[in-house]
Amino acid sequence: MVDTFLLRPVGRVASPLTDAASAPRQGDEGAPPAWLVFEPQLEPALRDLHVGAELLVLTWLDRARRDVLTVHPRRDESRPLTGVFSTRSPNRPNPIGLHRVRVLTVDGLRVEVADLEALDGTPVLDVKPVLGPVDER
Amino acid sequence: MVDTFLLRPVGRVASPLTDAASAPRQGDEGAPPAWLVFEPQLEPALRDLHVGAELLVLTWLDRARRDVLTVHPRRDESRPLTGVFSTRSPNRPNPIGLHRVRVLTVDGLRVEVADLEALDGTPVLDVKPVLGPVDER
Repeated sequence: MVDTFLLRPVGRVASPLTDAASAPRQGDEGAPPAWLVFEPQLEPALRDLHVGAELLVLTWLDRARRDVLTVHPRRDESRPLTGVFSTRSPNRPNPIGLHRVRVLTVDGLRVEVADLEALDGTPVLDVKPVLGPVDER
Repeated sequence: MVDTFLLRPVGRVASPLTDAASAPRQGDEGAPPAWLVFEPQLEPALRDLHVGAELLVLTWLDRARRDVLTVHPRRDESRPLTGVFSTRSPNRPNPIGLHRVRVLTVDGLRVEVADLEALDGTPVLDVKPVLGPVDER
């Protein structure tokens, strides 16, 4: 018996990217800037975000398949089928996307970030700072 | 109107850590080895995990509070209240833990990893490889 847990998105991605087949596979592979648009009631959680901050954004990859356990990495059929826990495929039992980005603009509930490969409309689940050295935490 | 999404854990953490108040705050702050114990039906997803692999483990921090939007970082009341999206506090709207670990042992559905600060019984949501350089993906 496995418990289940309910995710409530904290916002959405607004991006020029709308097509999974042509989107970059990772942020550092040519992804454009995008906006994170937060729910109004979350304002206190985001009030210390600032231009230049390095963040990890967690998203719900709502166009992914959850029943896929092995894939050809990077959709390259010449590569052997690989367990999804050893790949970054969006298709996986809990399709949570993990994106490292830098803040470009903060405008109230809207935060612009560089290099985000998530598609337009993707739900945002969480935002975390990239950790610095232990003695600076 | 916000959609919601259902997480189904893929396994659990088995760890000597049972008390949040005394647990290390991050894996590189003295956390012990722990085992990830996967659900049997997920076996194909984990079959390429190997000793020495550097992984990102995502967990559901099931003892966290979801209604907390600002915290004193590291429970230090001399530090100002800070929006949770600028901290690694477990208390946040979607309490997803992110842990960088290294595989020590693979034994069927059980994978031992170094330096995991998650508490015993914590649900595991996903496992991803740490990304190498673009031309090695």
